[in-house]
Amino acid sequence: MQTYRFIIIGLGNIGRNFLETVLSRADLLRQRYGIALQLVGASDSAGSAYHPQGLDMARIIALKRARRSVAELPQGRPGGSSIELAQQAKAEFLIEASPTNLKDGQPGLDIVRTALRRGMHAVLASKGPLVLAYQELAALSDLGSESRQAPCLRFSGAVGGALPTINIGWRDLSGARISRVEMVVNGTTQVILQLMAQGQSFDAALAEAQQMGIVEPDPSLDVEGWDAANKLVILANAVLRQATTLSDLSVTGIRGVSQKQLQAAWTAGGRVSLVGLAEAQPDGAYRLNVAPTTLAADHPLARLGLGEMGIVYQSDIAGRTVATSLEDGPIGTTAAMLRDLIEIVMRR
Amino acid sequence: MQTYRFIIIGLGNIGRNFLETVLSRADLLRQRYGIALQLVGASDSAGSAYHPQGLDMARIIALKRARRSVAELPQGRPGGSSIELAQQAKAEFLIEASPTNLKDGQPGLDIVRTALRRGMHAVLASKGPLVLAYQELAALSDLGSESRQAPCLRFSGAVGGALPTINIGWRDLSGARISRVEMVVNGTTQVILQLMAQGQSFDAALAEAQQMGIVEPDPSLDVEGWDAANKLVILANAVLRQATTLSDLSVTGIRGVSQKQLQAAWTAGGRVSLVGLAEAQPDGAYRLNVAPTTLAADHPLARLGLGEMGIVYQSDIAGRTVATSLEDGPIGTTAAMLRDLIEIVMRR
Repeated sequence: MQTYRFIIIGLGNIGRNFLETVLSRADLLRQRYGIALQLVGASDSAGSAYHPQGLDMARIIALKRARRSVAELPQGRPGGSSIELAQQAKAEFLIEASPTNLKDGQPGLDIVRTALRRGMHAVLASKGPLVLAYQELAALSDLGSESRQAPCLRFSGAVGGALPTINIGWRDLSGARISRVEMVVNGTTQVILQLMAQGQSFDAALAEAQQMGIVEPDPSLDVEGWDAANKLVILANAVLRQATTLSDLSVTGIRGVSQKQLQAAWTAGGRVSLVGLAEAQPDGAYRLNVAPTTLAADHPLARLGLGEMGIVYQSDIAGRTVATSLEDGPIGTTAAMLRDLIEIVMRR
Repeated sequence: MQTYRFIIIGLGNIGRNFLETVLSRADLLRQRYGIALQLVGASDSAGSAYHPQGLDMARIIALKRARRSVAELPQGRPGGSSIELAQQAKAEFLIEASPTNLKDGQPGLDIVRTALRRGMHAVLASKGPLVLAYQELAALSDLGSESRQAPCLRFSGAVGGALPTINIGWRDLSGARISRVEMVVNGTTQVILQLMAQGQSFDAALAEAQQMGIVEPDPSLDVEGWDAANKLVILANAVLRQATTLSDLSVTGIRGVSQKQLQAAWTAGGRVSLVGLAEAQPDGAYRLNVAPTTLAADHPLARLGLGEMGIVYQSDIAGRTVATSLEDGPIGTTAAMLRDLIEIVMRR
């Protein structure tokens, strides 16, 4: 049995759910993989906590459910910063689940840099650091460093939660040449477009989706296509092996989708979805864009259910590979972070 | 750059296609993974060939296309046995692509035993050895041995070709508890059932499928459900971690499917498919069966195209994960064997 110490940055829904899951399946991890996970450090918006012999995960979960801070623990530091925790903690793993900041990726970006430089494996749910600095972070990790000692960098949960977008591209198509990728990975726009297809205007559909509670406080991330674009940037860097930033993509949101396009798609048995698309060009580079796209009735992603996401890969030796995932809330992202962590452990 | 030596047993469509693919993408393997693959031994139905400095893959491909034998090579041994090759060759990898023999799994079973005992990694396209002796073979490999030196045993291509049945179960659901698996992994019965749904009798549909050239010389493997059952046995052992042999399954073929059932499914917008099913029981064990099953219109596998296969996993933390694969002939199995080989190399 091997014990692995981890620190977690970010204790919103995703971070808290990760702790709940790790705690509740200690038996499974032990029996299947001979792994024990010990939380030694944690950081939320009000402070941090650290103890080399381990923190009380159950107590932290209770605190977070009560909307309180880990700073209240005996080992807590009110106002303690996440970057200090990353700099000082002795742990094998960083779990990075802080809110996505696409302006400068901070503090997540500095935290991941720090952790990797210190030799900690990094498992990310957050997208910011990868969207803004994929190549730099990859070079600090096993993804890009020549050194056999380089720590691992994994982020399967950042590109569609439990949907194995990255893993299928990396592992199942490892010997293949990918010619095309289509992904539908934003649940909010799926709902809004479906409401619009039923005849509502964009504004009315957005208002209804907001009432359903499925829209971010700032809806533009979803409806302007940036969430889908972020995921496509990460996938392009990681799976398509093309250095990519947001400015390399053409991005069109759903605001301008016409009733004419929606009705035509519907009548033909298909639908309009916000699709992230990568297409290999003759010179080998991939053209990347995000746009509302009419999917024909027989398109593999034309029947995704509410909350369901999907990806289609076309490659030279594996034909057409499709995956879809229907998850219930943040737990899909937890499943992804856990699989990343297990994969790193089993690799070494 | 690292060179890995391999031997290949079986040079029918799958084995030959594997060599063609390995040869044609030497550049990709070198650039992406720093790997060079060197064929040192090969065996077909008429003999074998071996040379520690490598055999001429292009020449072997030409011989096989002309329906001739590797025994004709300068280093060839007419009548040379595959088991001798496995016993004597110095190589890192065994590629096992011999025809499936479900009676006693031979010679594949002895070949895989020999290779693993000699420390060779084994990548299987064939099902026989795994269906008949999974637990024994796993114990000789990294899947079941305590030893860090144990060679790897991989077989993702034996359970649906390029469809990542095993890999999603092992890797993407590694921290999850799987409650249910449904798979449609036999193309022949898909076609026959579709013809029957159009009003043909089983016998007429079988005859038409045979004319299409998509039925084995002995159709019973497909139509009696044994091909699907074999794949379910392997998946149950590997992913569900339940020691399983064919006798643990309830298996019903498609011969007795009634026009009434077919029409009812069709009218409701669904279909009848031969489904391999695993369901977790209260005691934790999985009940396993193969049977023609009515899929409702909204079932994720109700719209598979001709030649398309699929799998649905239900698990506690990843929700519903679906994968489908539309492949063009044996090359999907080649893609699977290649990804297995790459995975073994990248792991070590």
